[in-house]
Parts: sequence; C-alpha cells; structure tokens
Amino acid sequence: MAPFPTRLELALPEWVAPHVAAWPDAPGDEARMGLVLGLARASVERGEGGPFAAAVFAAGRAIAVGINRVLPERNSLLHAEVLAIMLAESHYASHNLGAAGLPRLELFSSCEPCAMCLGAILWSGLPRVVSGALREDAEQAGFDEGPVFPASHRYLEARGVELAHGVLREEARAVFTQYRHHGGRLY
Amino acid sequence: MAPFPTRLELALPEWVAPHVAAWPDAPGDEARMGLVLGLARASVERGEGGPFAAAVFAAGRAIAVGINRVLPERNSLLHAEVLAIMLAESHYASHNLGAAGLPRLELFSSCEPCAMCLGAILWSGLPRVVSGALREDAEQAGFDEGPVFPASHRYLEARGVELAHGVLREEARAVFTQYRHHGGRLY
Repeated sequence: MAPFPTRLELALPEWVAPHVAAWPDAPGDEARMGLVLGLARASVERGEGGPFAAAVFAAGRAIAVGINRVLPERNSLLHAEVLAIMLAESHYASHNLGAAGLPRLELFSSCEPCAMCLGAILWSGLPRVVSGALREDAEQAGFDEGPVFPASHRYLEARGVELAHGVLREEARAVFTQYRHHGGRLY
Repeated sequence: MAPFPTRLELALPEWVAPHVAAWPDAPGDEARMGLVLGLARASVERGEGGPFAAAVFAAGRAIAVGINRVLPERNSLLHAEVLAIMLAESHYASHNLGAAGLPRLELFSSCEPCAMCLGAILWSGLPRVVSGALREDAEQAGFDEGPVFPASHRYLEARGVELAHGVLREEARAVFTQYRHHGGRLY
C-alpha cells in the first residue's frame, strides 16, 4: 500500500453543467462577466464554497468554468480560476492556452485573481484576464489576496497578458454581501 | 452532455509510491532535502516532466509528495508543490495544513517556489517551507519564477510562514544540469 495518497479526483458539482449549458452567447466583456457572476451567485445560493466563479471564453462561448471549492473539497488550491484553467487545458489537451492553433481565450473572474491565481494565469499562457470585484472589495469582505503588488500586474503585462479590472464591479461586490447573508464561512 | 469538462483526475506515476516507501526516516533539513532531490532526479531519469520535486514532511516522514507533471499531464498548474500540497490536504482531509490537531508540517521543495506556489503555500496554512535551488539557479536553467519579490517572502513571513532557502543548493542545481543532459524541454 502506498504510504501516502497518489490520486485526486476533482469535479464540479452536478448542477454546474446544466447551468452553463443554458448560457446564451455573450458578445462583450459585460455580458461575459454577467454570466460568471450568475454562476457565482448560484454557487453561493447552494452554500457550496466561497463566493467566486470564473470561466474561460472562446469568443462568446464558455469552454470551461470553475467555482471556489476550497471548503467542500477540503483543498485550499481550488479557487475558481484554478479549476477553470485546469478544465480548459483538459478541454484543449494543452498546457498552453495561448498556443498557436487555439482560439483567442480569455479568463473572466468574478474577483481580481489572488497571488496564486495570478501565477497560474501566467503559466497557463492565457492572453487576457477580465475581473469584476477589486482586491479591496475582497479584502473588505474578509478575503486575503496574498502577495500581489502593482509590480505583479506589470510583470504579467510585460509578458503579454492583458488585464482588465472592475467590469461590473458593483454587481461583483454584491456577491460578497449575498455570501455573508447566506452565512458563508471566511477561511 | 456537458458543453465542457467537469472532472479531472490527477495521479502521480506508478513508480513514485514504491520510490518513496523506501525512504528512511529523515532527521533534519538536509536529510529531507536529500530525499526530495532523489525524487527529482528519479523523475528526470524517467523523462517525465520538469526537474522539480517536493514533499510534505511530518517530522522525519513524508506524508505526501509531488513532482512536476506539467508536460505529461498537459496541465500548467501541476508544479511539484501543487501536487504535494493537494495530496497532503487529501491525506488529512483538511484545507488547512496548519490546523490545530495536525502535526507540524513542513514543505520541502527542490527549488524556490514560483509565484503560484508561494500563493498556494500561503493558502495551505503550511507553517514552514524549505527549498533547495535558488530563483537565480532556476532562471539560469531557463525556468521563470514569475512575479516573486522580496516583499512576497516578507508577506508570507508576516503571516507566520517560516522560509528557508538554499539547503543542499549545489545538489539541487545539479538536477537542472541532469535535466538538460536528458534533453528535457523548457516550456
């Protein structure tokens, strides 16, 4: 017998696939962010993990999504962005989401990525990231973003990653309020 | 049918469990790092992924390990530290490796953690991280560490994470040389 675990299975909850299958094509940043925020709200309503969602879009269509699964999966790495990126790479069978031959992919996240997720974004090769709530909104809601500095964003931009912040910010902040009303745990 | 993938299975290669089962108890930092570097060399010899390994130790005993699996699993997030932390959390069924009731856990990594892994370490609650090769060694070997600054390390230390660098540094650097001699890909 192995003296330690060697396998992990990660899965989105069953309700996510039909939820996302009902998404219309989303022609612009606000439409895409609106869908991601709807996914975050749906997750909060089910009381399943932190108030965060993310999706990788190819043009108007989501090809992978993630929600925060830290508490239900007992896995501190399962931020929404981590799952969305891993599932997108699985979809394209590539560790490089900026590879030639793929459509131009964009990550939409309900909140500015934390330090871990910024690193994950850089390694994924994603060329564009759009976020909703700002770091200060997450911090006001009790969530730490970790060691992210202005130089961190410049580092990614210098490597060709386009970063857009604050899209539908008020609607994104409201997800944190909804989470508190549902008695969501901070961790 | 789901319009996108919703499940992922992550697994260490079959040879890893017997390799680690043969480890003796390791009484100090250098002994533990020596075992981790042996795991990194074994991975390079098999031509399976980048020249990096990590392990979570409870006193002298590894309770979870990871190796870099980016290329074989086509998953840019599968750094050695990511797998070691996820598997350790699975072992203890906890998203918090610093939780009361757990033994004092330490992460040993063959190389200084990149930006993503530093964030992952912070969220994991691990109280101590020991690394071998330095950032500059990884960069000389052609690997980017991402947006890690002196302030990033201070950020973790201010939250109670003890960081030790450069343990068995020369032996750790040699793994990069071995990787190049095996024709290992940079990515």
